[in-house]
Amino acid sequence: MKQEVISRMHQIMNKEQILTNLEDRMTYAYDGTMQTGVPGVVVFPRTTRQVAEALRLANREKIPVYPRGAGTGLSGGSVPEQGGIALVLTDMNRILEVDTGNLLAVVEPGVVTEALQQEVERVGLFYPPDPGSLKSCTIGGNIAENAGGPRALKYGVTRDYVLGLEVVTPTGEILRTGGKTVKNVTGYDLTRLMTGSEGTLGVVTRAVLRLIPRPQDVRTAMAVFATVDGAAEAVAEVSRRGILPTTLELMDDVTIRCVENYLHMGLPVDAGAILLIEVDGFRPAVDEAIITVEKVCRELGATGVEVAAGPAEREELWRARRAVSAAIVQLKPTKISEDATVPRSRVPEMVRRLKAIAQKYDLTMAIFGHAGDGNLHPNILADRRDPEEMARVELAVEELFRAAMELEGTLSGEHGIGSMKAPYLPLEVGETGMRVMRGIKAALDPNNILSPGKMLWG
Amino acid sequence: MKQEVISRMHQIMNKEQILTNLEDRMTYAYDGTMQTGVPGVVVFPRTTRQVAEALRLANREKIPVYPRGAGTGLSGGSVPEQGGIALVLTDMNRILEVDTGNLLAVVEPGVVTEALQQEVERVGLFYPPDPGSLKSCTIGGNIAENAGGPRALKYGVTRDYVLGLEVVTPTGEILRTGGKTVKNVTGYDLTRLMTGSEGTLGVVTRAVLRLIPRPQDVRTAMAVFATVDGAAEAVAEVSRRGILPTTLELMDDVTIRCVENYLHMGLPVDAGAILLIEVDGFRPAVDEAIITVEKVCRELGATGVEVAAGPAEREELWRARRAVSAAIVQLKPTKISEDATVPRSRVPEMVRRLKAIAQKYDLTMAIFGHAGDGNLHPNILADRRDPEEMARVELAVEELFRAAMELEGTLSGEHGIGSMKAPYLPLEVGETGMRVMRGIKAALDPNNILSPGKMLWG
Repeated sequence: MKQEVISRMHQIMNKEQILTNLEDRMTYAYDGTMQTGVPGVVVFPRTTRQVAEALRLANREKIPVYPRGAGTGLSGGSVPEQGGIALVLTDMNRILEVDTGNLLAVVEPGVVTEALQQEVERVGLFYPPDPGSLKSCTIGGNIAENAGGPRALKYGVTRDYVLGLEVVTPTGEILRTGGKTVKNVTGYDLTRLMTGSEGTLGVVTRAVLRLIPRPQDVRTAMAVFATVDGAAEAVAEVSRRGILPTTLELMDDVTIRCVENYLHMGLPVDAGAILLIEVDGFRPAVDEAIITVEKVCRELGATGVEVAAGPAEREELWRARRAVSAAIVQLKPTKISEDATVPRSRVPEMVRRLKAIAQKYDLTMAIFGHAGDGNLHPNILADRRDPEEMARVELAVEELFRAAMELEGTLSGEHGIGSMKAPYLPLEVGETGMRVMRGIKAALDPNNILSPGKMLWG
Repeated sequence: MKQEVISRMHQIMNKEQILTNLEDRMTYAYDGTMQTGVPGVVVFPRTTRQVAEALRLANREKIPVYPRGAGTGLSGGSVPEQGGIALVLTDMNRILEVDTGNLLAVVEPGVVTEALQQEVERVGLFYPPDPGSLKSCTIGGNIAENAGGPRALKYGVTRDYVLGLEVVTPTGEILRTGGKTVKNVTGYDLTRLMTGSEGTLGVVTRAVLRLIPRPQDVRTAMAVFATVDGAAEAVAEVSRRGILPTTLELMDDVTIRCVENYLHMGLPVDAGAILLIEVDGFRPAVDEAIITVEKVCRELGATGVEVAAGPAEREELWRARRAVSAAIVQLKPTKISEDATVPRSRVPEMVRRLKAIAQKYDLTMAIFGHAGDGNLHPNILADRRDPEEMARVELAVEELFRAAMELEGTLSGEHGIGSMKAPYLPLEVGETGMRVMRGIKAALDPNNILSPGKMLWG
């Protein structure tokens, strides 16, 4: 990084907000993937003004800027692959407002997702999006990636809770989108264009988030099936009965065995699949719903259904699901976590294809995730130190993307494109889609300084 | 319209799909507003290919194109103010697929909203968006305007049900966005960018719509209040009790008297406001909810609360709300219907300001609409043949927009900007917002042929 740029940066923010030592910069070279890229400088703005001035400087000097929150991303979106400036938003972490009258919160991008949830639940409200990393990931990152989570089945994803944004454009202008009303059709929907744009169109410096009343009650059940098809059939039948569960999580045989080896909690290691089903809402409704869920599962051949009697038992049922990521890496050190998504009815076919792909390339694959919305997480377990194996992983990944396409699915349900899936984006959106997206990018970022190399340039 | 263009159009579609007589073209010069503009030619494409070829022709010849459905819009978005081609999508009106397994429908843009709702309800599914014109408006128009309706309070607006689109771009390319999965974060959210773009970025030729299970039961109540504040307080308290009604409709005193004069159904003409409250979902839940709603209304001073015992009584309660538009034009021939929207807690203040504005400019204003989400419909009643009165209307409208802005609201909750509100758009989105939106428009429509003069150029 040119010394001149560093000194200009010191005119924008204080000394302690700027890191230049290699050891410090190294710690911002990673996210939740295997991607790496060392930034030339790491800055921690504290105000929208500082973000805007930093971007104006970068735009003038044509220096790449990679915004990031907690760096838990699973598509490489925040990794500074071309060096430049790592723009870390974690110091802008205030919850500015929780408005119980209008069911909304105004937050800065660095607020940790779980912290917001706990804050609003204290006053009887609810912020549904629950990405797996919610204990550490930030709202800014959630918005940039349009994060999902298990509860997305009933409540939708981050996009569905963003009412308005303050965004700094790549040219350093401050843009305000949407606002504090649930309904807003004033001009183009820039709020949703920015949501999920993976830090390529602007830097979110403030967000107005929609909240909902906290559900009165939650009931949870775990059902064991001999086959994935049986589990998938139950998933479909539950919604046919007019029930929309909060979550409908699937674990396949490999996943079950990994978790059992890890926790020794007595999971049925001979089972083909386990469903973790949760319903929430009005007490009378959830009581009726969980009974129906149990009935449906038994009718469709569940070898066992357990309904949690209380919070403690509920926690116990969730323990298995929560342990998955930690458990599967016991098998092999490197986890390649995908999230190709298919229409729900195609889940059994997708699982069949995934297992065939794992076999074809002689790889270990654990399949789990959000069966209710077809958003599975096939995780390939490998060892990055074994180049021959990693080559097979690459072939398998491309094949699973193509399988998702063939089943009318999508490359990514919630992890985003980033750098990991950029080469495959044209597969799904086509040449016209690429042209339109690149046109929008160029209109907002003429010098292509914001997250260059991500999403649109594989 | 140049004869050469007409004859080229005849190479694209059949004779009976093209109208050139003035009498015929006149009938496509209107929408739901007072705006008019006679198109040079009216065409009725039947396939995506025909739409694409028509747009390529128009783009080559730099001829304005105004896409439209049933022409029920309330912001002038489909009126061919610069002449050119009226592109009518009503002949592309097939429901191509209702997928009960994946809870989605695939439709052409000309499908009438109510027709889709009836079709999916037959198989136990539900398409929530319910704009007032649902008996005649089309899905394509709903998507272009991001239409709302009373049920938006609980279920959200059209945007929340569009999973994927086939769109013909202004340059005649066929763009496919989103798909059949509920979760999709693959590239920019072009689906939502197109939704609500009011026919300025592309022409929707096919849509994948998300459906939900049909609610098991519905309960409806009507509560009479001495003041709008009392009604508004009840609105707030209902949600504080953790209830999210399907609809929460308000009628002010002027509206009540108009409806009573029109229907003679025994409405309390001395009341300050009436709330029409509906809850739906699981039977046990709605039974509990409607009891709470009644309790809250009485606690907050409702002088009367009526809960419908069955479908017949429910219809009766809705009769008043449905008759509003027809009733108020009995007062004066010209209805200027606005939909400036404020955060829900500001509704009482907004109503006070609206009444003050009406008084200041000596105008008759009926206020009704979706109190639950702050999306009021202040309707000014006037006579367009009286220029002096219409001048006062114009001043009043601008003042009500400013009032909405001051209360952290928005110009439009569901009607869109079109030509009616275009002059006021910069008020809300600012210069940066205008620049970004115009940049996106230019990227997709370099010759500005699609709906020129709308939204971005007031």
